[in-house]
Amino acid sequence: MSVRAAIWGEKQEAIEESLKAVDEDLFCYIRDFAYEEVLARPGLDLKTRELLAITALIALGSPKELATHLEGALRVGATEEEVRETILQSALFLGFPRALAAMKLFHKVLKGRGSAHPREG
Amino acid sequence: MSVRAAIWGEKQEAIEESLKAVDEDLFCYIRDFAYEEVLARPGLDLKTRELLAITALIALGSPKELATHLEGALRVGATEEEVRETILQSALFLGFPRALAAMKLFHKVLKGRGSAHPREG
Amino acid sequence: MSVRAAIWGEKQEAIEESLKAVDEDLFCYIRDFAYEEVLARPGLDLKTRELLAITALIALGSPKELATHLEGALRVGATEEEVRETILQSALFLGFPRALAAMKLFHKVLKGRGSAHPREG
Amino acid sequence: MSVRAAIWGEKQEAIEESLKAVDEDLFCYIRDFAYEEVLARPGLDLKTRELLAITALIALGSPKELATHLEGALRVGATEEEVRETILQSALFLGFPRALAAMKLFHKVLKGRGSAHPREG
Amino acid sequence: MSVRAAIWGEKQEAIEESLKAVDEDLFCYIRDFAYEEVLARPGLDLKTRELLAITALIALGSPKELATHLEGALRVGATEEEVRETILQSALFLGFPRALAAMKLFHKVLKGRGSAHPREG
Amino acid sequence: MSVRAAIWGEKQEAIEESLKAVDEDLFCYIRDFAYEEVLARPGLDLKTRELLAITALIALGSPKELATHLEGALRVGATEEEVRETILQSALFLGFPRALAAMKLFHKVLKGRGSAHPREG
Repeated sequence: MSVRAAIWGEKQEAIEESLKAVDEDLFCYIRDFAYEEVLARPGLDLKTRELLAITALIALGSPKELATHLEGALRVGATEEEVRETILQSALFLGFPRALAAMKLFHKVLKGRGSAHPREG
Repeated sequence: MSVRAAIWGEKQEAIEESLKAVDEDLFCYIRDFAYEEVLARPGLDLKTRELLAITALIALGSPKELATHLEGALRVGATEEEVRETILQSALFLGFPRALAAMKLFHKVLKGRGSAHPREG
Repeated sequence: MSVRAAIWGEKQEAIEESLKAVDEDLFCYIRDFAYEEVLARPGLDLKTRELLAITALIALGSPKELATHLEGALRVGATEEEVRETILQSALFLGFPRALAAMKLFHKVLKGRGSAHPREG
Repeated sequence: MSVRAAIWGEKQEAIEESLKAVDEDLFCYIRDFAYEEVLARPGLDLKTRELLAITALIALGSPKELATHLEGALRVGATEEEVRETILQSALFLGFPRALAAMKLFHKVLKGRGSAHPREG
Repeated sequence: MSVRAAIWGEKQEAIEESLKAVDEDLFCYIRDFAYEEVLARPGLDLKTRELLAITALIALGSPKELATHLEGALRVGATEEEVRETILQSALFLGFPRALAAMKLFHKVLKGRGSAHPREG
Repeated sequence: MSVRAAIWGEKQEAIEESLKAVDEDLFCYIRDFAYEEVLARPGLDLKTRELLAITALIALGSPKELATHLEGALRVGATEEEVRETILQSALFLGFPRALAAMKLFHKVLKGRGSAHPREG
């Protein structure tokens, strides 16, 4: 399975169509270099890579890209608790406002997945 | 073992003395809240927490604090390869200059640990 | 009066309910460590603390959290002019785009408070 | 022609009215210092200056101000390709998430200009 | 007294010579716009302005410019405690690594001023 | 001529040896993806690309990588004035402290190139 299939799951086709429409060259770099070359490297499992991606995106304050990897982390096997801990810890290094914004976003992502009690998910 | 003992290792006493001299209240917050409350939480192992810390510190561009956690990651069981992959991946999210600066710093850290061939460490 | 009561005012209950729903542990850290431990320290009055918070949030570019502290600053006694000066000065250190985005947000906050002539508020 | 007229084009009056309403002093600094003093300096043509502005705004992650200068770059003579290359290159220095967010915004800007086939614009 | 004289104190001449040598135009903007226009505005006292400057510079992670304003804050009447509180509070918004780096720098600044017991200053 | 030869000039061999020693994989990505794929794209001349790189690196606050591209800009044909204007303009978007730090670095770079009167260079 490609890294994109693992991280993007059932949204892969929609994400790829949308990226291609925005800029074909940037799409190719994201697909061939970012996902299938760097994120596909051995040495770290995909779950850890997604938690690292979440941390980097909290630092950047990029909500849309963060949402993609919050979902991606769950898809490649991170538990809800692991994602919560990743966000909580970011408060120490990046400050509470960034951590809080990320946790609100994660709350929305969990709700969007249709779990009635996001806390127990 | 305290989280500080695990991450700071043989440098614990020196780091604590230096922090206390700088500001006792900030030292207490770092010790009691950052290390022994948040980093000590269950739900993520300390190795993953240190790789997340490295990513956050690459984003901040804070070389001294980054060096502390590059060493800390190795102390709590991360392999040299896992640290390298964490840094390499950060190029995707935070850009090559930040990743390169971090890798140079890691190279220095490895040299400081006295390994003759840092690459094979 | 708690620091939260002073800064959040009549919105305290709503903010706390919303934070608790998002993540109870993060809520506790924000309540017990951020607000009632650090922001509650003596040595700086709450008005100055809120102006400092505004500056930090302009630097982060976090609009929601910035709005909270723009309102908070007014609640703990900052004048509209003091908040405007804080934002204006941030242009020097953080650039005009960040300052402008903050000023637009403050304009909205003032409008939301129902003052017919926000400039004279 | 003033730098503002060149960059803001047919939106100049609307932008100025809106800035004045938000804060007259900040408006004056933006008009007299940022636009008509610094951006008006000789030594770099306005097109290059707008591409530099785009890069700085991608770094800041400020979407509204970025949209203004994406349009501004086109108005002062940058081709769509030059803007795309500026955004693409930013992925190297500022990471893919920032570059991608900027490219999506540029796609929207191009659509808003009514070009049926934004790619060929 | 000019704002520069108040903030730079006995170092004014040396700072101005050094700035002029680096770039005369940038020096003029810093002198005429940053210091004598914006920082000289009424509405906030210079001490508060310097504490805000410190916060912005902690966010930027710019050690040299931060040192200038740590000294400047003391010169315009901030107590050591007020500066410490400003730095401590920044940990909440900008994370512990940035706050710690700033506190270490402040410790050095205090030592450089020749106080035997920096903590009691 | 490769893009690296154009930007790194007589330092190419030294830079490549140093990068390889630090991390061979990161070196390959920088060489093959960053330099010879993205920076080598048509659509923007190398001089403009280097001025954009300078702006991005001022935003990141990465002095070593910034020095490389300040020199690189001069090597690929940017005049000293064009580099100065790029730095000056960054004050508007990224704040004066970042612009000032960059201008000091450029001053040092010019001195290192042995020009007796860096201002007239």
